[in-house]
Amino acid sequence: CLCLADYDAFPPTQMLDYNVLGGKCNRGLSVIDSYKTLKGVDVLRKEETFLACTLGWCIEWLQAYFLVLDDIMDNSQTRRGQPCWFRVPQVGLIAVNDGIILRNHISRILQRHFRGKPYYVDLIDLFNEVEFKTASGQLLDLITTHEGEKDLTKYNLNVHRRIVQYKTAYYSFYLPVACALLLSGENLDNFGDVKNILVEMGTYFQVQDDYLDCFGDPESIGKIGTDIEDYKCSWLVVQALEHADESQKGILLENYGKSDPESVAKVKDLYKELDLETAFHKYERESYNKLIADIEAQPSKAVQKVLMSFLEKIYKRQK
Amino acid sequence: CLCLADYDAFPPTQMLDYNVLGGKCNRGLSVIDSYKTLKGVDVLRKEETFLACTLGWCIEWLQAYFLVLDDIMDNSQTRRGQPCWFRVPQVGLIAVNDGIILRNHISRILQRHFRGKPYYVDLIDLFNEVEFKTASGQLLDLITTHEGEKDLTKYNLNVHRRIVQYKTAYYSFYLPVACALLLSGENLDNFGDVKNILVEMGTYFQVQDDYLDCFGDPESIGKIGTDIEDYKCSWLVVQALEHADESQKGILLENYGKSDPESVAKVKDLYKELDLETAFHKYERESYNKLIADIEAQPSKAVQKVLMSFLEKIYKRQK
Repeated sequence: CLCLADYDAFPPTQMLDYNVLGGKCNRGLSVIDSYKTLKGVDVLRKEETFLACTLGWCIEWLQAYFLVLDDIMDNSQTRRGQPCWFRVPQVGLIAVNDGIILRNHISRILQRHFRGKPYYVDLIDLFNEVEFKTASGQLLDLITTHEGEKDLTKYNLNVHRRIVQYKTAYYSFYLPVACALLLSGENLDNFGDVKNILVEMGTYFQVQDDYLDCFGDPESIGKIGTDIEDYKCSWLVVQALEHADESQKGILLENYGKSDPESVAKVKDLYKELDLETAFHKYERESYNKLIADIEAQPSKAVQKVLMSFLEKIYKRQK
Repeated sequence: CLCLADYDAFPPTQMLDYNVLGGKCNRGLSVIDSYKTLKGVDVLRKEETFLACTLGWCIEWLQAYFLVLDDIMDNSQTRRGQPCWFRVPQVGLIAVNDGIILRNHISRILQRHFRGKPYYVDLIDLFNEVEFKTASGQLLDLITTHEGEKDLTKYNLNVHRRIVQYKTAYYSFYLPVACALLLSGENLDNFGDVKNILVEMGTYFQVQDDYLDCFGDPESIGKIGTDIEDYKCSWLVVQALEHADESQKGILLENYGKSDPESVAKVKDLYKELDLETAFHKYERESYNKLIADIEAQPSKAVQKVLMSFLEKIYKRQK
């Protein structure tokens, strides 16, 4: 028999449940919201809902695939409140193959439900493009953060920006809207500005994340930040490097990336001394104003509404 | 800047050279040979050569992607006479991401050179299908060979067949011919028999591989086989389990998968006692005759010639 009959009849449910579920599904859900807004309706037809949900799940699958593999590469302990998949006994490095299977499911889902649609090729190209950008971002992050000796001079605003945009912004912000645009019959070539705005919004979102990791309330954000301990290329350390004098730089070089509480405290004190909280709020305000201006320059009111709904969800968020 | 300018201008040449080159390129080259045969010409036009070579390289890229990740999962030491990529200092588990990048390159290459072709969608679907089959074969292999306690009762002819067909035959035998068929303007739906024949040929090839691992001349095949030590689900152990009496089974259970030379010798002696060499030659003859009959039943002489050329390359090979 040439078919994986058992496999198709009994897909690896446990692997899927463990890795695809457990998040907030923000990315997947925003495909449906954006599609409704673009169509100007409150309720989609059954078939439309099904297709939008399918693409939403494809994004959640894509995220699961990245997270499974990233956790292996970063040697992480937990994800969404449970052990990382590769740390589950009996799984181990088979998790690499499970990541690949997750990725392959996306192609199969798209083929099964979109093969006859006029935008099928664009959909495949979109997922391929976004996957490649994300993998490139992960590579940039790995070679910047992990490669060789710890060397803070490699960190600067451009490096931070590139990692964030490639690794997070494309798939988290651009991809859901691009899916909704394709469902609405639009040609993505006409939405270059929308792409740029969403990637900017993704950058802004990650800068908030970096800020909250250090200055947020652990109760609200649901975890205790460890960017300093983990030697992360965070917006905060990049800002600190930009504004520090020689002696302050010495403190950073000495203490960044160490896990003892005293080193961490010294870095946090320096962040406060450099008034990075004010710098962040200035960045937040300016970034917001720029985004509002760019959104208002969009010719389509429906597109404006989609973009505003994303922005409202993240502006001044505390978690 | 939203573009990975440095990255596009300076692709990761070292990673590509290390992992894509160094093999025999049999799979890639057979796209060109098969295409020539299907067209009935000795020389292709420049544009045709370019496209056939491009698809040939895509298969080599696909193989590189699988090998990089398989070596991590199998914890292998060497590949093509050099340390596995993940064992290179400075690489480590970044190799997982490099595998992903290799896979993503294929989509980009196909998009760049085939986006306007009438068979573009079929090409993408083909690579996706074959990739999924291969990943499923690797999963079957991992859960059969590596999972839990060593348990020879999991090994049988059906299991062996499925692993071999999924993990090796589709991408090594079917994929090159399918690429050549698409280049020739054919619809793959009309070539289900060709697919089955090639997958059978791939199975036959892997059975030879398993046989040569134990009974071949290490000088000719260029490596010393370690299937017994590695507890591989080899055609030989499966045959042995099929034909052994209870006391012989005991010898297998006791010694298979151990690396000391005495255990290995006991397994090899049992293989000889069970006359697996004769069993292999019988299988080889029968498989060959069946393949010849199936090939001769093909309506197209050109397709027959393509299939015969594959078969001739592997029949009674010593390496």
